[in-house]
Amino acid sequence: MGMIGGGKDAFIGAIHRIAANMDGLIELTAGALSIKADVAKESGRMLFLPDDRNYTSYEEMIKAEAALPSDKRIDFVTIVTPNFAHFAPAMTALENGFHVVIEKPMTFTLDEAKKLKQKVEETGLILCLTHTYSGYPMVKQARQMVKEGTLGKIRKIIVEYPQGWLSRLSEREGNAQAAWRTDPSKSGKAGAMGDIGTHAAHLAEYISGLKITKLCADLNVVVEGRALDDDGAVLLKFNNGASGVLIATQIAAGEENALKIKIYGENGGLEWHQMEPNTLLVKWLDQPMQVLRAGSNYTAFLSSYATQNCRTPGGHPEGYLEAFGNIYRNFARTLQAKLEGDEPSKESLDFPGVEDGIRGMAFIDNVVASSESDKKWTDYVV
Amino acid sequence: MGMIGGGKDAFIGAIHRIAANMDGLIELTAGALSIKADVAKESGRMLFLPDDRNYTSYEEMIKAEAALPSDKRIDFVTIVTPNFAHFAPAMTALENGFHVVIEKPMTFTLDEAKKLKQKVEETGLILCLTHTYSGYPMVKQARQMVKEGTLGKIRKIIVEYPQGWLSRLSEREGNAQAAWRTDPSKSGKAGAMGDIGTHAAHLAEYISGLKITKLCADLNVVVEGRALDDDGAVLLKFNNGASGVLIATQIAAGEENALKIKIYGENGGLEWHQMEPNTLLVKWLDQPMQVLRAGSNYTAFLSSYATQNCRTPGGHPEGYLEAFGNIYRNFARTLQAKLEGDEPSKESLDFPGVEDGIRGMAFIDNVVASSESDKKWTDYVV
Amino acid sequence: MGMIGGGKDAFIGAIHRIAANMDGLIELTAGALSIKADVAKESGRMLFLPDDRNYTSYEEMIKAEAALPSDKRIDFVTIVTPNFAHFAPAMTALENGFHVVIEKPMTFTLDEAKKLKQKVEETGLILCLTHTYSGYPMVKQARQMVKEGTLGKIRKIIVEYPQGWLSRLSEREGNAQAAWRTDPSKSGKAGAMGDIGTHAAHLAEYISGLKITKLCADLNVVVEGRALDDDGAVLLKFNNGASGVLIATQIAAGEENALKIKIYGENGGLEWHQMEPNTLLVKWLDQPMQVLRAGSNYTAFLSSYATQNCRTPGGHPEGYLEAFGNIYRNFARTLQAKLEGDEPSKESLDFPGVEDGIRGMAFIDNVVASSESDKKWTDYVV
Amino acid sequence: MGMIGGGKDAFIGAIHRIAANMDGLIELTAGALSIKADVAKESGRMLFLPDDRNYTSYEEMIKAEAALPSDKRIDFVTIVTPNFAHFAPAMTALENGFHVVIEKPMTFTLDEAKKLKQKVEETGLILCLTHTYSGYPMVKQARQMVKEGTLGKIRKIIVEYPQGWLSRLSEREGNAQAAWRTDPSKSGKAGAMGDIGTHAAHLAEYISGLKITKLCADLNVVVEGRALDDDGAVLLKFNNGASGVLIATQIAAGEENALKIKIYGENGGLEWHQMEPNTLLVKWLDQPMQVLRAGSNYTAFLSSYATQNCRTPGGHPEGYLEAFGNIYRNFARTLQAKLEGDEPSKESLDFPGVEDGIRGMAFIDNVVASSESDKKWTDYVV
Repeated sequence: MGMIGGGKDAFIGAIHRIAANMDGLIELTAGALSIKADVAKESGRMLFLPDDRNYTSYEEMIKAEAALPSDKRIDFVTIVTPNFAHFAPAMTALENGFHVVIEKPMTFTLDEAKKLKQKVEETGLILCLTHTYSGYPMVKQARQMVKEGTLGKIRKIIVEYPQGWLSRLSEREGNAQAAWRTDPSKSGKAGAMGDIGTHAAHLAEYISGLKITKLCADLNVVVEGRALDDDGAVLLKFNNGASGVLIATQIAAGEENALKIKIYGENGGLEWHQMEPNTLLVKWLDQPMQVLRAGSNYTAFLSSYATQNCRTPGGHPEGYLEAFGNIYRNFARTLQAKLEGDEPSKESLDFPGVEDGIRGMAFIDNVVASSESDKKWTDYVV
Repeated sequence: MGMIGGGKDAFIGAIHRIAANMDGLIELTAGALSIKADVAKESGRMLFLPDDRNYTSYEEMIKAEAALPSDKRIDFVTIVTPNFAHFAPAMTALENGFHVVIEKPMTFTLDEAKKLKQKVEETGLILCLTHTYSGYPMVKQARQMVKEGTLGKIRKIIVEYPQGWLSRLSEREGNAQAAWRTDPSKSGKAGAMGDIGTHAAHLAEYISGLKITKLCADLNVVVEGRALDDDGAVLLKFNNGASGVLIATQIAAGEENALKIKIYGENGGLEWHQMEPNTLLVKWLDQPMQVLRAGSNYTAFLSSYATQNCRTPGGHPEGYLEAFGNIYRNFARTLQAKLEGDEPSKESLDFPGVEDGIRGMAFIDNVVASSESDKKWTDYVV
Repeated sequence: MGMIGGGKDAFIGAIHRIAANMDGLIELTAGALSIKADVAKESGRMLFLPDDRNYTSYEEMIKAEAALPSDKRIDFVTIVTPNFAHFAPAMTALENGFHVVIEKPMTFTLDEAKKLKQKVEETGLILCLTHTYSGYPMVKQARQMVKEGTLGKIRKIIVEYPQGWLSRLSEREGNAQAAWRTDPSKSGKAGAMGDIGTHAAHLAEYISGLKITKLCADLNVVVEGRALDDDGAVLLKFNNGASGVLIATQIAAGEENALKIKIYGENGGLEWHQMEPNTLLVKWLDQPMQVLRAGSNYTAFLSSYATQNCRTPGGHPEGYLEAFGNIYRNFARTLQAKLEGDEPSKESLDFPGVEDGIRGMAFIDNVVASSESDKKWTDYVV
Repeated sequence: MGMIGGGKDAFIGAIHRIAANMDGLIELTAGALSIKADVAKESGRMLFLPDDRNYTSYEEMIKAEAALPSDKRIDFVTIVTPNFAHFAPAMTALENGFHVVIEKPMTFTLDEAKKLKQKVEETGLILCLTHTYSGYPMVKQARQMVKEGTLGKIRKIIVEYPQGWLSRLSEREGNAQAAWRTDPSKSGKAGAMGDIGTHAAHLAEYISGLKITKLCADLNVVVEGRALDDDGAVLLKFNNGASGVLIATQIAAGEENALKIKIYGENGGLEWHQMEPNTLLVKWLDQPMQVLRAGSNYTAFLSSYATQNCRTPGGHPEGYLEAFGNIYRNFARTLQAKLEGDEPSKESLDFPGVEDGIRGMAFIDNVVASSESDKKWTDYVV
């Protein structure tokens, strides 16, 4: 693995490294860890990168690695730069035959996203998008239960993602994470909706297997002096006629990372909370609620997608890093199968890719368009 | 107390009686418990009503009671009929000098509500509207904390009220509660929004002290064959610029009565769940969440509105019936003070009244108007 | 109903009145509410007692009421005095033909308890002991599930009852409740074990249907200057070979009234928390945990003992006062059936009585004996 | 790192590898992964071990590694064999200059534990004992809060560790984990008390800073046909006069890994649940409960021991593997400092070691002795 971005001050780069390390399937062997050469070099040394693969730009890394013999060079790059700097390294990597892991949102614009999709299709290379929350075993369980029709036809989806960390103008107080995320030139045309609304929308579509077809958005800039939305709510219509509500706010003072989803069908409902991720509540119309738990011994009740994305028995909580690790592990297993000419298992193939990236960028575009419109409903276009 | 409606098959009448009985301040001494004379009579006998005050119509009851000497007759009527049959008995009672307790929504139409308001103002009589949820001590605590500015300026309100009991066409399967609530001629122009959306809207305005000024509603008839909305979501704007989301659905299969509210201000947030009503979560931007509990000994942290609406020490859970009882108790204390020429305490005066009834009827009108409109925002008119 | 004790400063008397009022089946018509004549009189007036039945001693009340015609006099007395003053009024009431409701622990000594039992058997009168926690619908549900063998043979019972309100020497700071409860001359030979340990022991035996046969107790006086145990733990053996642990402490600083019980059998376990009383967790060896809820519509999963002890549909929380009310309601229905020559329903008959009172007093004796012994196990003798 | 045990069928070996991998500080470079040569070899290949460091016995590994130049050889061994096979490889490693990480309980007998301690003291090498639960940030937070006197003098400790996985005779049904853990020749003289009771005892002493001085144990063999205790409860006395209760059972049907601890002092209490590990409940005598959360931004409320053992911001749940990883990371940082001649930070030094191992073995001895005794209290001897 060669990492682009993720130098010593970055947040998400460190998370990617833990996730990639965890299962002993992936090794960090090269990096272009910062656009500042000295930071890149120093960061690489702290991570035990050999000097000659501790690069100072992604262009340099991709060129040098592509020149190595195939059993020496990296198999893939992982891109953990701010949003505006996703597309160029991803495209360069694909053009040079490297698979790509990329942090969400996939690109800066929908147009870039479509170009990446085209390139992926041309090259047959793998692009993995780290929509972390779809890596949780009980999220996969939920998806499979919907797919198998356990709930009957889906009628209602409520997904909320409240955070409180942008309740003040932290971007002016030296918070680097806040600074780029609230800057339209780095983050894109949406703030909270791009940063976390896309996660919520992905989760809703991932679990339900449905697609948003219309939406009605109300985006707000709550903290004075901010350029992008820090709060918003969206009414949704799905392609089977179901309706939904999506809330994404970063000014919910006192909230940590309280992503929750509830999905109701004719026969029952599912509820999942990211902050208690090993539990899936299964509600029934005519019988007591069941509490499905990751890693449990009642495997007859659990999908193979849930059981194969656990590492520990029930009651040994796995968390965010393991969910992230599941995306890397599934990607790695798929890649390994591909390299060995095998067919990857269906469970390994279950990680977000370029199509999810397209949907994410389209979601941002559509939500912003709706928010600016006086019409109630805006058609969701891709 | 003379009860109108609430005969032997009714649900809410029994609740009102328990709530009224609980504190030994109110006695059921007369009733016109059903529009069917035999049911009325039989119901009255089961409740130990004396024969001569076991009436067969509200007109009869009001006339007969009004003719009794003032120390013998009932002080007030309580109206627990279906929505369409609220106005007439309420108006008659007021015209004959009786105070009124009335189940929500207050009337069938906003116009009726305005007439009641006028009559209440003319007569100086008390009208108490049983918006039960505002009777919970921790709801009152939340209201006082907002009022005192603990959270700073309010920015966001999320209130959701999911129930699952109308997930099937129960109104066709002999469920009497479902039958009248889904019948426009008995329930009014809204279904779920009238039945429970009004509770959610009341709670949001009651706790926040704000008023809804604009809304954008999406009402749905999910179960085929039903005439009124059984599901809906509403985007809200409040008079201080805050935004909000209100969800009211009766097709959330597997949900009981899961009313929840979250209110965020500049400094922190409050969260309250009706199904765990003795707990108020107080979230802070810069310090750990606190769990405020009804009946606790740390009275310095609790408003007098909270402490005076408890009957037991912390850890002895009070519930829905006690919240209902608080409305009756506060009404009774206010009435008693009035009868004795005293000034009621500010805590006693804190029960919903005719103004809340107006807001409730206006909410229904505005939500229905918005749902039928193509415009995103509908001004909230009263 | 004639109440003995429970004057204006008392805690538990007010609770009894609410519980008795709630369902409109019982009316407070007489009282000897305090041993201080003026307090008794004033308290009676506050409760709207007629002057001639507002007595100043229980002897006076029982004599006067017994002299009334049978359709005028009270049917039963309710005794809510401190422990040392339970026996005499109870015995007098029974001797004069009155049924008795009595707060737990039933008496001051085991010997008194046995005398009451003998008198109850002689007279055929009903004695109801208000072990409140056995009035909760989900406790009754648990009992029935064990009885029906759902869990298989019971193996382990863990019951804990932590409170924090005696963490300081409150009895010296004017806390009247603390004062008598920590005074051996008023409370009896045990403190926390008598006050709340008896509740825990009753709950364990009530739900499991088992009897404690041996115990090993460690009682502690934690707060310096206190005469009776304020903390303790007991290892238990039951008559089917199961083992258990009982913890009762009033120095668990910060705890409210956190009674919890867990019962494990061969096939699964049950868990119930008094502070969230409408929920019963049902854990299974080979399938997901179920969350049984009071008042739910899935009545096939609920025992008639649970459904007949609810007043509201699922999601409308009932609490401590309703549990207390259930004991009064079941007693009243049993009494009514008896008075009318009918057979009470089995559900009505399910309230604690004199036998439970005997077990409670024996528990205190045995726990204190064990605590004073160097031997590990003390046989539980009655 | 060279791993001893942990071949392809083992449970805990895989956990150790994830924990060691996670932070990129430790690399698995050698192994003697099974006592069966073919299993060892195959397991090593699956983990990408080079052939020449994929050993078939620990003796071979230690000898061969010791012969390598110091910059090539492993720095430490990690021992993940069943209990009976801990001592010999640990002693051999220490004798050959290797640091040691070892799964708990440290040895098979207390005598072996004392010998290891002596050898550690002689050599100055580091022995790290993986009492996982002390690696959780909120456990460390609890320990520091007690240490700083936040709760005042500690009065009561309740620790319970219920599991259900040995509710049946799984050791006869091909469950390898069950087989050795219930076999006295492999597990030692205690079953549940050795396997999980030691964790509970360690946690109680670790958080409270107290030492058990007396105990009264009741160990049971609940499942017929089993040789060792599968259930037990212990009354405890601590060196400051506090009392406690410890419950460890593996027949609590339906429980996963529900380790919980509650500690009460004069001013308040702490409660921590392993299955929701990022939350520490802080209960106060005179103010609302606080919910302290790992990774939160209110760092003024969090000890450096808590903050330095997190990898993610609040609301991104970390779990069991991260707690395990913390022990490895702290060990690795301590080792690194030592190798570089630096002083390790106090936070890095906070991992369990040989003294904890001694206490664990003594706990087993004392609990078994007490259980066999008729006396109530057994002095805790080491």
